[in-house]
Amino acid sequence: MAPDPTSAHFAGTDRDRAAFEAGIKLGSILHQYVGTPLRAANAGSLERAIEAATRVQPLVERVRVRIDRTRMRIRGPYRYGVLTEDLFDVEVAVRVGKAQAVGVLRYVPELDYPLMYLKNIGTPSKS
Amino acid sequence: MAPDPTSAHFAGTDRDRAAFEAGIKLGSILHQYVGTPLRAANAGSLERAIEAATRVQPLVERVRVRIDRTRMRIRGPYRYGVLTEDLFDVEVAVRVGKAQAVGVLRYVPELDYPLMYLKNIGTPSKS
Amino acid sequence: MAPDPTSAHFAGTDRDRAAFEAGIKLGSILHQYVGTPLRAANAGSLERAIEAATRVQPLVERVRVRIDRTRMRIRGPYRYGVLTEDLFDVEVAVRVGKAQAVGVLRYVPELDYPLMYLKNIGTPSKS
Amino acid sequence: MAPDPTSAHFAGTDRDRAAFEAGIKLGSILHQYVGTPLRAANAGSLERAIEAATRVQPLVERVRVRIDRTRMRIRGPYRYGVLTEDLFDVEVAVRVGKAQAVGVLRYVPELDYPLMYLKNIGTPSKS
Repeated sequence: MAPDPTSAHFAGTDRDRAAFEAGIKLGSILHQYVGTPLRAANAGSLERAIEAATRVQPLVERVRVRIDRTRMRIRGPYRYGVLTEDLFDVEVAVRVGKAQAVGVLRYVPELDYPLMYLKNIGTPSKS
Repeated sequence: MAPDPTSAHFAGTDRDRAAFEAGIKLGSILHQYVGTPLRAANAGSLERAIEAATRVQPLVERVRVRIDRTRMRIRGPYRYGVLTEDLFDVEVAVRVGKAQAVGVLRYVPELDYPLMYLKNIGTPSKS
Repeated sequence: MAPDPTSAHFAGTDRDRAAFEAGIKLGSILHQYVGTPLRAANAGSLERAIEAATRVQPLVERVRVRIDRTRMRIRGPYRYGVLTEDLFDVEVAVRVGKAQAVGVLRYVPELDYPLMYLKNIGTPSKS
Repeated sequence: MAPDPTSAHFAGTDRDRAAFEAGIKLGSILHQYVGTPLRAANAGSLERAIEAATRVQPLVERVRVRIDRTRMRIRGPYRYGVLTEDLFDVEVAVRVGKAQAVGVLRYVPELDYPLMYLKNIGTPSKS
């Protein structure tokens, strides 16, 4: 495999970059799609579109997107809602060299906050 | 059908509102999805998600979204692009009472501009 | 003034287009900025940026953006919120020839809905 | 200082999280504001609004946002453009415990790509 031409710009290790790239993907997803009109009828197509668009981005190994239908808020005279930051349930794995980072975005009830966190970071045992 | 509870807030006629609502839908689509990572592989799922999310919005009768693959700009070390305003080809029809407005968003080469315009406005002959 | 080169693409009257353009501006504002991190400290700079970016768009005569600080939801371990659709209070006036449309986006409590509506449409008495 | 209640959710070290959070901030900025209507007249207010909204987010120590006016593309009958990913010049520093990460988003001509990279990661000598 040819060396990645972006590497010369990076400080730190592959592991640092894996963590960084996982953050990019989650921040991008939240801010790109928040506000999308939402009802149970279109949640599935939106999940698939977000997954497919994320796979297009650099270094993504795996991504899973779920929209929490139980927390959706349908309201108003036209009976629909929007995708809010609390409805995301996303897990994304990125790989940089031998380092892998798994990032998660999900609403954490005890914090009352849609947290983005590193679920795993390091070198997978079978790489 | 029950009267629309939002009507009391509106100045003007049903035709005025149809034009207004068509504008809302097109402005919403452009600014919600512009910037989404894009490659031929995910253009189809994105088209379907935008269509489905638009159908959730009030008064939409019909919507068709195409992303112009021939104008997509794939580039950089990771070989992908983003959804830009010039790639949209959208037609949306909204209905308010007996009035219908058909709005279009598409890149117009002679203007070098992604124009939103009213393609049709009035009372369809068969309503 | 030179004729607007986009006119040839439009069905309908100047009044129709004024209503359409008012809708575009409101739909654009909502979907561009929803999700922006928000606290009282940055609400003012965001209001000014939205106003300035709206004035750049075609045919805008006047725009006023307020973010409702009383409805902001500050929460979580880091004590901030995001700009949601219910926090917008926007009024925009667009002019097409002699026709003017004034559109509003604001949360309407009795509908529990962030409504976009035409506040005024027609030919101002002093144009 | 009270311990951060989100820490229990995180795998890895403070350094890992610093890299992760820097990525979040850059991904968020790009996807929140891309598509905003732009002309020289509103670039300054947009820069300030993005900076202020970024300071509201967790763990941000410092942020600087510039929009490259020399690369702005003003066009079409209404003579304006939009904020594209190539126009951003952003530097953001985040701090987690004693670890600091400095992330950059800027267009890199030799890659023809708006790269997000870690400019610095580690423990500043004077902390």
